Amino acid sequence: MTTISPDRVLADLNRLRDFGRHKTGVHRPSLSTEHNAACHWFAGRMADAGLTPAIDGIGNVYGSAPGATRKLLTGSHLESQNYAGWLDGPLGVVYGLEAARVINGDPAFAGRGVDVGVWFDEEGHFGHFLGSRSFVDGLSDADIDSAVDRTSGRTLREALAAAGLADKPRTQVKPSDYIGYLEAHIEQGDWLEAKGLNLGIVTSIVGIWQFSVTFTGTQNHAGTTRMAIRRDAGLALTDLCGAIARRFPEVAGERTVWTTGRITLDPGAPSIIPGTAEMLFQIRDADLATLQRMEAALADLVAASDAAGPCRARYQALRKSMPAVMAPHMQAALADAATKHAGNRYTRMPSGAGHDAQILSKVMSAGMLFVPSIGGISHHWTENTSDADIVLGAQVFATACASLLREAEV
Amino acid sequence: MTTISPDRVLADLNRLRDFGRHKTGVHRPSLSTEHNAACHWFAGRMADAGLTPAIDGIGNVYGSAPGATRKLLTGSHLESQNYAGWLDGPLGVVYGLEAARVINGDPAFAGRGVDVGVWFDEEGHFGHFLGSRSFVDGLSDADIDSAVDRTSGRTLREALAAAGLADKPRTQVKPSDYIGYLEAHIEQGDWLEAKGLNLGIVTSIVGIWQFSVTFTGTQNHAGTTRMAIRRDAGLALTDLCGAIARRFPEVAGERTVWTTGRITLDPGAPSIIPGTAEMLFQIRDADLATLQRMEAALADLVAASDAAGPCRARYQALRKSMPAVMAPHMQAALADAATKHAGNRYTRMPSGAGHDAQILSKVMSAGMLFVPSIGGISHHWTENTSDADIVLGAQVFATACASLLREAEV
Repeated sequence: MTTISPDRVLADLNRLRDFGRHKTGVHRPSLSTEHNAACHWFAGRMADAGLTPAIDGIGNVYGSAPGATRKLLTGSHLESQNYAGWLDGPLGVVYGLEAARVINGDPAFAGRGVDVGVWFDEEGHFGHFLGSRSFVDGLSDADIDSAVDRTSGRTLREALAAAGLADKPRTQVKPSDYIGYLEAHIEQGDWLEAKGLNLGIVTSIVGIWQFSVTFTGTQNHAGTTRMAIRRDAGLALTDLCGAIARRFPEVAGERTVWTTGRITLDPGAPSIIPGTAEMLFQIRDADLATLQRMEAALADLVAASDAAGPCRARYQALRKSMPAVMAPHMQAALADAATKHAGNRYTRMPSGAGHDAQILSKVMSAGMLFVPSIGGISHHWTENTSDADIVLGAQVFATACASLLREAEV
Repeated sequence: MTTISPDRVLADLNRLRDFGRHKTGVHRPSLSTEHNAACHWFAGRMADAGLTPAIDGIGNVYGSAPGATRKLLTGSHLESQNYAGWLDGPLGVVYGLEAARVINGDPAFAGRGVDVGVWFDEEGHFGHFLGSRSFVDGLSDADIDSAVDRTSGRTLREALAAAGLADKPRTQVKPSDYIGYLEAHIEQGDWLEAKGLNLGIVTSIVGIWQFSVTFTGTQNHAGTTRMAIRRDAGLALTDLCGAIARRFPEVAGERTVWTTGRITLDPGAPSIIPGTAEMLFQIRDADLATLQRMEAALADLVAASDAAGPCRARYQALRKSMPAVMAPHMQAALADAATKHAGNRYTRMPSGAGHDAQILSKVMSAGMLFVPSIGGISHHWTENTSDADIVLGAQVFATACASLLREAEV
């Protein structure tokens, strides 16, 4: 029986909250002073746990189990969204660290062990999954050259140099070393809470398809241009939003979500009819066919807007990540552990958010465990999970790690 | 018979186009180097015409007819919108200057004369009608202290100091010196062109009622928050835009216009459900009762959105300028002059744009003359008017000035 230390898990998580503390959450953007300090502190905790820590040239913090030839990889991230929650990321790396503490060095697991990866910039301050992509070899030097902090405008190269990482090599995975990757994360939604459950086992991570829809009309004076002759790009845009709100529920899957996150009217002045307008529109679903059906519906509505006039309407895909299916035997190990520690208080569910597990799943079997988010709140400093759920999740995670490693051949 | 010089009018207008030339238009923001140069050049042209020029502490350029005790005031502005048209403003000051040239000094007008005012910042880089408001005593030092260039962020105090105007007093009108104010301007719409007419006589200048409508929902993760529980402030906003588009035509007057010029979703990120959203909404009409009816319709729709939920909706008025009626005898003088020079090729019409005449009309009788805008284009560098229409307008303007002064008692 692999038994975690609840106090140690909670103490590590609370210590991490000190790095960039903001009210009850944290402000710890990638490569900020606070983030760098958190990474160095965590590398020290890895060493305390008997792991061999290293920080590589993209800012990944890696703790390697010495003497192990068959390993289970765990991990998550330590940077936060701006002024956001304390558990989004840290929960997963502390669970991994705790699993390493209770498994590595146990004679029952001779030659086997748990590694812990802290993946850089999962939150996307500089790009998309830069750390885990670098680790699986999906990131070029050119990608790093062009990356810029979306808030401060600082280049990634500058930020890496300031953190003393400019000349370090980037570590890349050798997949055959691993039996798979297991990541824990807060749910970030209210599904578990609404159903009165304590654990979620992820079946797949949604694909995120992001589009820019642009409207071109005629910029003109808002006082002297009669309504009848206007070509108001902003009006065409808000009309499309209405059409989406009517049409999309008819073609969506049970858990499909879609969001208009940004609207820009140009020039954006109170007395000028917008000549162009743009919206950022996103669709998420765990099923590829559903994503394709939703994009087709969007295409139809944009084409109908364009044909009806008076503005031109066009859309283009900015990003299309594929849904990532979690390995059935990883799901089974998590389900067995959940049943053991929590009876039937768990469910299988897709992840509506992206996670590093979707990147790691390209080169090894991957699985994910969710714990509940109070009120479903995420990406806000009020994000939280009960201590009891944090501790239960850590135990289920460690038990699943142990059972997967127990089955592994050395 | 008062006869203008077509070549002189066109030459002055084309010379002004050199200050800040941008393609076929100009970029000449208030108190920019180019705008200051244009003002100084124009003051020189005033002096050449026998006027006594002065630039005061708010940047108004004033040309006073020496020896006249009963005067007609003319004017407009010399700054432009950013990267905008060459005639928007200059047309009116050059017409005034030409009228002064052909009337002042004519023995038939002994003791009477035309003054020319170049009103600062009609285009609102720093505020609303700062120059003409200062002239009629509607502007406090505190208003100047708080004014900031909307594009560059430079304070008005800094800009005035850089132009050498920091310590100059501001000139204020003595209304009893004047029989009234006459301003010419490009139409900025397509009404005259659509009707095949060459001149517009303004009956009134629209009131501009500007509102901020704000929606408050709940900011949350765009992937993990189910559609059913979202409180998407952006969606509430675009729904209101749809409701306005359906309802407003039913309650509008023939020439009422309404515009959503800016939409802001907060935080404006592709993966975050907007927690708050704001739109700038504007209504214009020449009739007060119509404006009141339109505001009531807006209030109803906002209240309905708020009541329906799931977001809170509120609106507030940011600015309410009253419609300004042009004096009947000024309209009559313009109509007589138009009939004389253009037969029936003119019409009476409201002005959908605001003009300094609405400020001057608070202290004296005011009238306005429009010339056609090709294609109705305004606030864009392609704005234009045919030379023939420019010349015809200048002649009608001078004839109307002469007839008004001829009737004036010295």
